[in-house]
Amino acid sequence: MLQQLFDRLREIYPRLVEIRRDLHMYPEISFEEVETPKKIARFLTELGLEVRTGVGGRGVVGILRGEKPGKTVALRADFDALPIQDEKEVPYRSRIPGKMHACGHDLHTAALLGVAAVLSEVKEQLAGTVVFIHQFAEELAPGGAKPMIEDGCLDGVDVIYGAHVWAGLPYGTVGFCEGYAMAAADAFEIEVTGRGGHGAQPHLTVDPLVTASQLVVNLQNIVSRRVDPLKSAVVTVGSFHSGEAFNVIPHSAHLKGTVRTFDEDVRSMVEEWIGQVVKGTCEQMGATAKYEYRRGYPALYNHVEETRRVKRLAEQLFGTGKVTNMEPVMGGEDFAYYLQKVPGTFFFVGGGNPELDAVYPHHHPKFDVDERAMLVIGQLFITAVLDYWADGKLKVEESLNRFKAQ
Amino acid sequence: MLQQLFDRLREIYPRLVEIRRDLHMYPEISFEEVETPKKIARFLTELGLEVRTGVGGRGVVGILRGEKPGKTVALRADFDALPIQDEKEVPYRSRIPGKMHACGHDLHTAALLGVAAVLSEVKEQLAGTVVFIHQFAEELAPGGAKPMIEDGCLDGVDVIYGAHVWAGLPYGTVGFCEGYAMAAADAFEIEVTGRGGHGAQPHLTVDPLVTASQLVVNLQNIVSRRVDPLKSAVVTVGSFHSGEAFNVIPHSAHLKGTVRTFDEDVRSMVEEWIGQVVKGTCEQMGATAKYEYRRGYPALYNHVEETRRVKRLAEQLFGTGKVTNMEPVMGGEDFAYYLQKVPGTFFFVGGGNPELDAVYPHHHPKFDVDERAMLVIGQLFITAVLDYWADGKLKVEESLNRFKAQ
Amino acid sequence: MLQQLFDRLREIYPRLVEIRRDLHMYPEISFEEVETPKKIARFLTELGLEVRTGVGGRGVVGILRGEKPGKTVALRADFDALPIQDEKEVPYRSRIPGKMHACGHDLHTAALLGVAAVLSEVKEQLAGTVVFIHQFAEELAPGGAKPMIEDGCLDGVDVIYGAHVWAGLPYGTVGFCEGYAMAAADAFEIEVTGRGGHGAQPHLTVDPLVTASQLVVNLQNIVSRRVDPLKSAVVTVGSFHSGEAFNVIPHSAHLKGTVRTFDEDVRSMVEEWIGQVVKGTCEQMGATAKYEYRRGYPALYNHVEETRRVKRLAEQLFGTGKVTNMEPVMGGEDFAYYLQKVPGTFFFVGGGNPELDAVYPHHHPKFDVDERAMLVIGQLFITAVLDYWADGKLKVEESLNRFKAQ
Amino acid sequence: MLQQLFDRLREIYPRLVEIRRDLHMYPEISFEEVETPKKIARFLTELGLEVRTGVGGRGVVGILRGEKPGKTVALRADFDALPIQDEKEVPYRSRIPGKMHACGHDLHTAALLGVAAVLSEVKEQLAGTVVFIHQFAEELAPGGAKPMIEDGCLDGVDVIYGAHVWAGLPYGTVGFCEGYAMAAADAFEIEVTGRGGHGAQPHLTVDPLVTASQLVVNLQNIVSRRVDPLKSAVVTVGSFHSGEAFNVIPHSAHLKGTVRTFDEDVRSMVEEWIGQVVKGTCEQMGATAKYEYRRGYPALYNHVEETRRVKRLAEQLFGTGKVTNMEPVMGGEDFAYYLQKVPGTFFFVGGGNPELDAVYPHHHPKFDVDERAMLVIGQLFITAVLDYWADGKLKVEESLNRFKAQ
Repeated sequence: MLQQLFDRLREIYPRLVEIRRDLHMYPEISFEEVETPKKIARFLTELGLEVRTGVGGRGVVGILRGEKPGKTVALRADFDALPIQDEKEVPYRSRIPGKMHACGHDLHTAALLGVAAVLSEVKEQLAGTVVFIHQFAEELAPGGAKPMIEDGCLDGVDVIYGAHVWAGLPYGTVGFCEGYAMAAADAFEIEVTGRGGHGAQPHLTVDPLVTASQLVVNLQNIVSRRVDPLKSAVVTVGSFHSGEAFNVIPHSAHLKGTVRTFDEDVRSMVEEWIGQVVKGTCEQMGATAKYEYRRGYPALYNHVEETRRVKRLAEQLFGTGKVTNMEPVMGGEDFAYYLQKVPGTFFFVGGGNPELDAVYPHHHPKFDVDERAMLVIGQLFITAVLDYWADGKLKVEESLNRFKAQ
Repeated sequence: MLQQLFDRLREIYPRLVEIRRDLHMYPEISFEEVETPKKIARFLTELGLEVRTGVGGRGVVGILRGEKPGKTVALRADFDALPIQDEKEVPYRSRIPGKMHACGHDLHTAALLGVAAVLSEVKEQLAGTVVFIHQFAEELAPGGAKPMIEDGCLDGVDVIYGAHVWAGLPYGTVGFCEGYAMAAADAFEIEVTGRGGHGAQPHLTVDPLVTASQLVVNLQNIVSRRVDPLKSAVVTVGSFHSGEAFNVIPHSAHLKGTVRTFDEDVRSMVEEWIGQVVKGTCEQMGATAKYEYRRGYPALYNHVEETRRVKRLAEQLFGTGKVTNMEPVMGGEDFAYYLQKVPGTFFFVGGGNPELDAVYPHHHPKFDVDERAMLVIGQLFITAVLDYWADGKLKVEESLNRFKAQ
Repeated sequence: MLQQLFDRLREIYPRLVEIRRDLHMYPEISFEEVETPKKIARFLTELGLEVRTGVGGRGVVGILRGEKPGKTVALRADFDALPIQDEKEVPYRSRIPGKMHACGHDLHTAALLGVAAVLSEVKEQLAGTVVFIHQFAEELAPGGAKPMIEDGCLDGVDVIYGAHVWAGLPYGTVGFCEGYAMAAADAFEIEVTGRGGHGAQPHLTVDPLVTASQLVVNLQNIVSRRVDPLKSAVVTVGSFHSGEAFNVIPHSAHLKGTVRTFDEDVRSMVEEWIGQVVKGTCEQMGATAKYEYRRGYPALYNHVEETRRVKRLAEQLFGTGKVTNMEPVMGGEDFAYYLQKVPGTFFFVGGGNPELDAVYPHHHPKFDVDERAMLVIGQLFITAVLDYWADGKLKVEESLNRFKAQ
Repeated sequence: MLQQLFDRLREIYPRLVEIRRDLHMYPEISFEEVETPKKIARFLTELGLEVRTGVGGRGVVGILRGEKPGKTVALRADFDALPIQDEKEVPYRSRIPGKMHACGHDLHTAALLGVAAVLSEVKEQLAGTVVFIHQFAEELAPGGAKPMIEDGCLDGVDVIYGAHVWAGLPYGTVGFCEGYAMAAADAFEIEVTGRGGHGAQPHLTVDPLVTASQLVVNLQNIVSRRVDPLKSAVVTVGSFHSGEAFNVIPHSAHLKGTVRTFDEDVRSMVEEWIGQVVKGTCEQMGATAKYEYRRGYPALYNHVEETRRVKRLAEQLFGTGKVTNMEPVMGGEDFAYYLQKVPGTFFFVGGGNPELDAVYPHHHPKFDVDERAMLVIGQLFITAVLDYWADGKLKVEESLNRFKAQ
């Protein structure tokens, strides 16, 4: 059956490209998605799936029940865009000023619709259920995954798979990372308040600019002295603003930064330690501070067994030379929430291709990827679903013999 | 004669108030003075003085030659305003949006014109020459004093006196400071350049925000460890700007600050030391820096003998209870340039009066002073001129007997 | 055969305890080992092995050639003691004041001699060669491993195994760590030279104490900003000494510290970065510095295949519940040098037992372990050798059936 | 009379040298003075003065009552030595190992005894009383001045003069400083307590060495940001000790330092600010601290009128070329306590003379001075006493005419 499904996927590939480019031309940013979920719901409905819209707010869930009994596998694609001006010179360039699919979610969506189309055609042969989770608002915390889960999208689900097209991997390759694969990405803000005054009379002031500088220096000790050296953490101050005039001591200083961690304990301690450093550093100068820590997505933990399953399948499908182990990525992804509920894995599908000028990093105004990554995602999703139902005994190589013989 | 001159000053006082208020309503900021010098020149010309305009650019110099031979005394008033929006509720409030006499230069000007008016009436009795220096652009370095001196305004001058109305002193008092009275006020800018990147990947960047924070911390050692504790110096960073997003390590950080010193050697060393701290601090993080130091006015040094002369005269005129020793002021004043060329002194005349709501500091949008300070300035200028000509032997108390008896 | 060998090991166990306690009572510290290697050489010679003494200085190598052809497996035990006063209350307490086997090397040695004894009895059945490496001076860099390798102890060796009794693991368990298992442990010293002087006259000095404090602060950025957050590194300043009198600015400051890393590139960069921080930080204060970095043992990298082999064997021998994955240890071990030359693994054998008061950490004056760890080490060494020769096909469970049935 | 007194002083000068050298050979350090006060008391008793011994502990006070009525002038000399090994090669080198008059107190004592001898000879002509205060323990806080005052040595005293021979001034010159002349010299100690541990496991420790380094850095802000730039203050950390081994994070860090100030408010604020910096800096790292501040002598304030009197007399005696204005000295002197009670001044008498190898700074093992400084001190003390009695109308130049004519 695998060969048959792959053949169908190739046949509808031009349609997937069309869908992806339509989404690309009409991007909708996080929490503002209106037309995109409508398009998705229409497509899934036409396939004959059970479709729920407005899931968790703006999400769409399609359910394909195979005619034989079996387990339930969820596949997820996100569909929101970014507030970035598209600077590519291509026919499918964004028509919406200042908005752009600069992270590949358009492609995720089209690929997942392709999988739904292909599988729905063989419904009577399927020995289980597939839940297609089309998620809104991945780019902006608190994200869409959490409300969709709260709204039941994982109900009855046994396992979940997700994929991200990756500009840093060449087209044709697939990357896996067991265990922690993406970091918890939190944000913090600190407002240091002193007492402003004339630059020539520091003794009549409490200098918040010097205090905040000491603070930035002191914050380095969190990673260098307090976090277990065997665990990863990043504390970055990304923005420091204080004062305007060269000869006036300002009244306050404003810092913004981010914290990245994998381990939840480390995460909590870093949050607390920053508060301790802020408090003590300000007090020793006679200044005060307001400190706010906003948790983003948690760290994404790829379950070992499912990761190995999909990796093995990828090796069989594409050859071991095409499969790589990836280092964890310090960026965040709300797929983490699904994996807190059910087993599963999130993998990276190569999208880089210099011949297509697909060489820019994610979130770059010229970001693009090789669209054939949709085929890779589709094939791997389909194979994973079937193998999961077959309890790991899918004979990939035999199923594809005919294909390979061609 | 003193009594007679003081009487005349009082008689024309309403006219001086009128002049001051006219200037107040039509302020012109530094290096943009057009109408103000015209008004001054017209007034002095009408008094019959020799008048030079455009001195050093926009300055006005009036020369009153007494009919008896004698030494030449210069008196100076500055006439530029500030780019501040007047927020006072008075009839003479500034008519020019965003511009305001918020430092009292309007009053200095009117007071000096009053002195010129009074003295010009007794020209035949004067045993020397008075040079009235009406200076533009005191508020903005490089200032008007330097070009006016280069254009000859001090030629033949033996001594110079200047006064500043002072909101921090109550009306009726006069403040003196022997030796260094106002600091050299310099500015610096530092651009720290690192290599920006993702906030989660500090190892791929050179973090300029942390480097600049270390720099601010390290700069404290200049005053705490390197400047002679018996000498004064201030190194203030007034502005620190780096980065925008919370999760991006910026490419550079920008600092602006000011240095205040009295001793010229200390000033030069501080300039050099900042450069050394900038260089080493940036190098140890692998960053680079651009450092620019801009010298403002030099420290103002009040000559001991002349300061004591005018102080003694003030005690005789107003009573010792009205005369105070002032601490040096860390702000700058380009009267310093005149005192580098000829002996003299610069003193502070009380302008504060809560009954008139004259309680705001200089450069404040509601700044105002008790206009009677013009009488104090005028009386002290006149007395100082006569005493200088009399070689310190002016009998102030006797001259004023009649007045006091009234 | 496995069962037979294990039986023999149990039979000679009292002799091994005797040997261990003799070594324990007469410890010899690193690079001062004289009697210990003699005892070892005598024992091995009596077994009929080929014995080389003075290997690399003080090492002993015994070679047991099986009578069938096969590969060469090395097993290593270290035999040096520490300059610590034994404070235990046991009959076999150290007789040598100030010296003590506080790390378990006595037990390593006795266990390895036991393996040699047992295997030499079945020489005719052995299908390969075993090299018994008894190493001196593990505790003190540059250590004994390097000179022993240079002196040929690994010539012809195909694989090497080593074990460390571990107080932190309970008796009966075995710990494994794939890949980097122990850190590179380096040392550094920094001498900051300023210019001393009176504490009341900082401006006549260059303050090395403040400079060195800034240096300690700046060094934190190496770990917090420059090392990849996914990689481990520690930079610790363990000693800071500067000045004596409260009122004198000292002439210099002396820092000592350690660096721990796994990745060799990170190690080299940290060495370089410290130098950069030292140089820049001192220069910005006008001070100078001498910086010396001394490399200790490299990071110990356990080969994946051999680690998995021995771990699998341990699971079969002792049950999966007794086998744990260990986190890497930040301490150093010169077994790392052997693993740079040939494949192999280094594992940790539980020695903790509260009933025996074996609860103190390594290098503690009351350190002791459960001596039965020798049996665990011996069994695992024997099994690993046989399995290596059998190319991974040793039937452990079958071989031990009889034993288990008892 | 002045001339007559000066003549006598010269006549007994050899005797004064003898006394000074005897004291020099048998130095007694602070709070251990036994023989020195006995020698002084014997000398004064032989002159016929009223003598009190044991004043405030070990002080000696001699009172010379003139036979005419008049005011009471106190003259003070200190007599304690230092715990320094004398390294000079002179016949009068210290006979006591490790003790030495390395600050000139021996010379102060002999000079004051000379003044007592000379004045006691003309007792009947004296129109007032002279109190000779021979003070113990000037070198070591809390010093002898305070207990001597509490024991009544200033009772009835109208004015006091004190002198210090000064190695930094050439012999023959005298230095004066109006107002604050010597700083308050305080001491502080800070013990930072963290939690020690292995150098490779910073996350299990609270690093006191890093905390103390941050503390030293943060303390710089007290002088750079919090003290009025027009006022003087020094905060020096003179000693930093933490840790021994390179690879162990220590448990604590110990800092010692000194604070120098003139203004009593600044002094109190600095004491408080250090506490604030210590507390906040330790808290932000999770460490704790013990902070102890010990006040030394207060700042010495020379009364303006008396300083000008003695300076004017010095100019008349020695010529204006021999009299200099001195910058304040940041070192402490407990003469400050006398000046808190009565008017007076403390001046500096040149003792430097390269021909005599008197070129070493105070407290140096080779310190020595030109003994003729005793004549300068004696003449100036005598003249100051007479002028004070004469209400400032002593005709110095006329009195000395005969002398000058010779």
